[in-house]
Amino acid sequence: MRNWATAKRFPRTIRYPSPNPVSLQWTRSYSTEFPPKEVTVQKFTFPLASHSVKHISNNLDKFLQGNPVTLNGHLNRRPRLMAKHAFAELRDSNGDTIQMMLAHGVTPEKYFGVVEKSIPEESISVSGKVQLKQSRSGEREWELLVENYQVLNQSNLDAARLDKLKHSSPKDLPPQFRYLQLRTPHYQNNIRTRSKIANLIRNTFIQNHDFVEVETPLLFKSTPEGAREFLVPTRKPNAFYALPQSPQQYKQLLMSSGITKYFQIAKCFRDEDLRADRQPEFTQVDLEMSFVSHSDQVGVVVEDVVHRVWKDIAKFPVYTINKNGNLEEISEFSTHKINFTKVPYIEALTKYGIDKPDLRSSLSLIDLSGFFTPLKNTNFPVLEACVLRDAFDPSKKFKVPKALSDSNSYSRRKPIVIPIKTQPDASEWYKNFVEKHLITPTSSFNESQLESTLNLHPGDILAFADRAELPYENPTPLGKFRQLAINEFPNKWKRMIELSNGDLTDNYCTKDMVVASWVVDFPLFAPTESGGSPSDEYPTYELSQLESNHHPFTMVKLEDYDLLETDPLKVRGEHYDLVINGVEVGGGSRRIHDADLQKYVFKHVLGIHHYNDLFGHLLHALSMGCPPHAGLALGFDRLCAMVVGSPNIRDVIAFPKNQSGVDPIVESPSSVPEKTLSEYFITTKN
Amino acid sequence: MRNWATAKRFPRTIRYPSPNPVSLQWTRSYSTEFPPKEVTVQKFTFPLASHSVKHISNNLDKFLQGNPVTLNGHLNRRPRLMAKHAFAELRDSNGDTIQMMLAHGVTPEKYFGVVEKSIPEESISVSGKVQLKQSRSGEREWELLVENYQVLNQSNLDAARLDKLKHSSPKDLPPQFRYLQLRTPHYQNNIRTRSKIANLIRNTFIQNHDFVEVETPLLFKSTPEGAREFLVPTRKPNAFYALPQSPQQYKQLLMSSGITKYFQIAKCFRDEDLRADRQPEFTQVDLEMSFVSHSDQVGVVVEDVVHRVWKDIAKFPVYTINKNGNLEEISEFSTHKINFTKVPYIEALTKYGIDKPDLRSSLSLIDLSGFFTPLKNTNFPVLEACVLRDAFDPSKKFKVPKALSDSNSYSRRKPIVIPIKTQPDASEWYKNFVEKHLITPTSSFNESQLESTLNLHPGDILAFADRAELPYENPTPLGKFRQLAINEFPNKWKRMIELSNGDLTDNYCTKDMVVASWVVDFPLFAPTESGGSPSDEYPTYELSQLESNHHPFTMVKLEDYDLLETDPLKVRGEHYDLVINGVEVGGGSRRIHDADLQKYVFKHVLGIHHYNDLFGHLLHALSMGCPPHAGLALGFDRLCAMVVGSPNIRDVIAFPKNQSGVDPIVESPSSVPEKTLSEYFITTKN
Repeated sequence: MRNWATAKRFPRTIRYPSPNPVSLQWTRSYSTEFPPKEVTVQKFTFPLASHSVKHISNNLDKFLQGNPVTLNGHLNRRPRLMAKHAFAELRDSNGDTIQMMLAHGVTPEKYFGVVEKSIPEESISVSGKVQLKQSRSGEREWELLVENYQVLNQSNLDAARLDKLKHSSPKDLPPQFRYLQLRTPHYQNNIRTRSKIANLIRNTFIQNHDFVEVETPLLFKSTPEGAREFLVPTRKPNAFYALPQSPQQYKQLLMSSGITKYFQIAKCFRDEDLRADRQPEFTQVDLEMSFVSHSDQVGVVVEDVVHRVWKDIAKFPVYTINKNGNLEEISEFSTHKINFTKVPYIEALTKYGIDKPDLRSSLSLIDLSGFFTPLKNTNFPVLEACVLRDAFDPSKKFKVPKALSDSNSYSRRKPIVIPIKTQPDASEWYKNFVEKHLITPTSSFNESQLESTLNLHPGDILAFADRAELPYENPTPLGKFRQLAINEFPNKWKRMIELSNGDLTDNYCTKDMVVASWVVDFPLFAPTESGGSPSDEYPTYELSQLESNHHPFTMVKLEDYDLLETDPLKVRGEHYDLVINGVEVGGGSRRIHDADLQKYVFKHVLGIHHYNDLFGHLLHALSMGCPPHAGLALGFDRLCAMVVGSPNIRDVIAFPKNQSGVDPIVESPSSVPEKTLSEYFITTKN
Repeated sequence: MRNWATAKRFPRTIRYPSPNPVSLQWTRSYSTEFPPKEVTVQKFTFPLASHSVKHISNNLDKFLQGNPVTLNGHLNRRPRLMAKHAFAELRDSNGDTIQMMLAHGVTPEKYFGVVEKSIPEESISVSGKVQLKQSRSGEREWELLVENYQVLNQSNLDAARLDKLKHSSPKDLPPQFRYLQLRTPHYQNNIRTRSKIANLIRNTFIQNHDFVEVETPLLFKSTPEGAREFLVPTRKPNAFYALPQSPQQYKQLLMSSGITKYFQIAKCFRDEDLRADRQPEFTQVDLEMSFVSHSDQVGVVVEDVVHRVWKDIAKFPVYTINKNGNLEEISEFSTHKINFTKVPYIEALTKYGIDKPDLRSSLSLIDLSGFFTPLKNTNFPVLEACVLRDAFDPSKKFKVPKALSDSNSYSRRKPIVIPIKTQPDASEWYKNFVEKHLITPTSSFNESQLESTLNLHPGDILAFADRAELPYENPTPLGKFRQLAINEFPNKWKRMIELSNGDLTDNYCTKDMVVASWVVDFPLFAPTESGGSPSDEYPTYELSQLESNHHPFTMVKLEDYDLLETDPLKVRGEHYDLVINGVEVGGGSRRIHDADLQKYVFKHVLGIHHYNDLFGHLLHALSMGCPPHAGLALGFDRLCAMVVGSPNIRDVIAFPKNQSGVDPIVESPSSVPEKTLSEYFITTKN
């Protein structure tokens, strides 16, 4: 939600704290009289634009010869009236602006009066001649000498009052003025880029990979399990549809329907608490392929799609990590084998403390279990450290940044963060913690080995924390610390780029490049968390009640098959996440296409005993010779936001809901009369 | 809904009259035991297809040289076991089939046992050599000599029992076996063609016309008016979203948001009684353009899109009606001016009795008002006739087809239908009706003029009926008769095609060609129907209470502007329907972009006094300099169904709902526990 504090930047009179600002505004200023015909005709009869500003700029010599042109668009700023001239600015549909000059003697006098009364953002059609402008910069610039100026629709006082903000900081425009915000070049670019990305994705799937786009139903079945779905009452008593969280089940039905390569850019719905990057409705690039025997066969298609988005639209180079641990640009992209770096889940968790590591950073975690045992919780016996080398100048006063040390930055316990200010700090940092019985040296503890492992010097920051052997905490406290450190020091500890001549460089901007990876070999199941509060220092687990790490249709890795019966927590799934610059952009898996195995997982591993009510349709479809299949889904909103460089998916959605689930433009959700509800056999209840 | 009568075609044992046939089936046949590893490995580890059947057929000589190939697919039929061989049939993912031969001595013996137990529709991976087949036709045909046969997933008894029906009449497969139906070539083609059409439409908009695809919200605002929308409860008391019937309001907001050329292939929702061609969720090709001054500027874009669909995908020629009233193929398609025939609404109603005339037929209605006045209802003073020339052989016994004469074919009164069997019938047909006081001759009645007007001969069928002066009945009784006659006699009264050399021919099949037209100049408003029943012979109207013929945002034709204040029923709107082969494929209009005019229409014409609650957001967006705009929506499901030659949109939707709104696969809608409902602050009610 936009921060209301920003309201102070524009006059108090347009702060709308009331529940219904739009209507308040409304009743004030418009009439319901019958508009005179000449007024209406003027708004509906006008010459079309003959050219765009950009076209004229690119062919200026031709247009300087004096042929009249017509431009249509919006008045970008309040006009300036001078003695001999009036100046105004037009913004055309590409977002390009141009000065319009009204000159006494040339421009008909009546237009001076029109321009004098005009308000920014009115829509206009102007005709005239292109001429060179007096330019301070010395560059050739042009302006339009106005011969005809027609207002196609007036604007209102809100547009006038918000005009300064519109130019200085459109992101701070109040959300009910979304249409004004969307007119500004930044947001226009976002919306247009999103369309380009969707089109590129579709053409890549269809034209390069012979996929079929299939629309699956949005009126789906309610699964009595969760409260996370939106319900849709019908006009039959106690009969509800539900809006789907993903097309997962329908796409598996499609695999049993002879569609061998399916994709869809699909709307999905999620009724849960909204965060900055969550929306109750969102868009997913969904795909599934049958007769595949390995997830890489899906991976190469997804890589081709994602690679094209970054190369063709964002114009960003795409990197992987080479055998030396350096970044290497994907120069020759293969559509036959996996190009992106593969990172096993355990490696991601132990090296980076998270299953979606930002690999642009070279920071990695150091296992100190050979030196110390943490004493606080025996279920968390692994001690690990992260060193931020040369984080500060030890000759100056230094305090660890609040973001790294504040417990609000961490969901549970925070790591211990120590600035190494002196040489004694570097060698004796641990003694204090041993004394306090937070850690204890192991039997094999060796001081000089510890020193060479950590290699601390004044100016470094050391952080350490404990974690469980098989980390279900994700990120671990130290994984979170690493993320915070990367944000806090964006230009430090960058992974080296290895150039084609072998040279190494870290002279690059992490914002304008992409490191793409697959995180693989996830545990298929996790224990449910038992009791406790989400802010407890340590989570506790109910090891006898398992849940799927992703969804219950994910196939076990065949190497781990026997463990499914004996020790399911040790089983790795054929799940794979696509992680780009530390963001989980997508996830997929091979699915269980064998009905017997799927039933076993439902009943004996997950304890879902009424699986037939929930998933009978799927089991039946599998049992009719459904071929082996695998697939994936990409978060389309997130991908678009990353391409346009925005942290928030709301910036790439035309009409997003705010964090209360409210559409500030149309003011939904809204109340419904009891009479209407009765037609759906429901009534409200408090 | 599929006709259950067809169930007799397959064994009685699989008639499932119970509410939950799938689960019944289910519990019977599958185990929840842990499947042995070797069984699972066999299903998940297999060679990928090296080629498709089609590729081998097209390059047969190369493959006859003996290199082994692998094909994956489904077992298309039950195998036949002979003394020396076994024969089976594989259907690959293109729907192409090929014979597999297992030969003792070549094919490992174990596979004979596998094939013997196999059930149609299991998914398989087979390898072997390509060889020529003994062919009766003399054509070179090939078969696969099997060296490896691997079952990737078993099929079930339903697939076996339904196999004959699958081959003979897949449309009659029970709807809960939709995935089996979708595997058959006809349905595969439907689904794949739909994807191609969507892709062609998108690329035409984006690449040829510089449009931007924008997703608009599906969680929209409930408008307290209608009961036609689906509601979505939220987890706030008495706060509901509604699923949109179309993106109309959001796309107008986009016009005020600087998007000058918008389109979207959008999901829409409609909670009303379902007919054969209606679904509760459907898909619309939606577009809108700003800074347009005439609807033809939208029309040319839509024509380009639609023309490409027919030419490139259906491979059908597209015709318009030329100045001689003949069909003429659009050979040179213009993207600068309208190519399709324009038919004013009044012309459509008077000549064809409907606003979506099938122009492939030359049948048109004849005004008899100069000869007779109908006497039954003074509000319906126009008498008109339709003559089906040479409909039957007068020398043989003839009865008017029931479809034309049955009152069930007509929603209100039916026309009087007279077979002209003799010469006296031709000249004296009316006398009986005059005697019965159904019609009366006018003062200017002239018998010989009537005869030359109708020019009846034995073998003709004459129909006549009355209608109102400005026909709000649509179709009129006689318009309906014309439609029925076209269906009943598909090869008669075809409009002539005028060839480029001027020759005329009606030697064409109406199914394989397209006549495209724009119906224009619709009345902007219609009186509401008052009282009475929809099956009354004559409708009655409440002339003081008007409703929009399309929607309240449609602009009045400027020529009729003054009538908006004085006589709104006479006002024509800037609405235009796209009609192809008698089907309304789309509709659009210029919109009112002036807030004052829109308010006037809401309040003073339509009597919507709480317009601010309903449309305040739109009025406010218009008032912020929203530019002039116009747009259109195409019924995408209908368009796809027409392209694949299907009468039913369910044939081009992967998982349609049946006529009770039920998804027969997943069995939605379904009940939801009260506990879940309370989270949404609702409860069920009877």
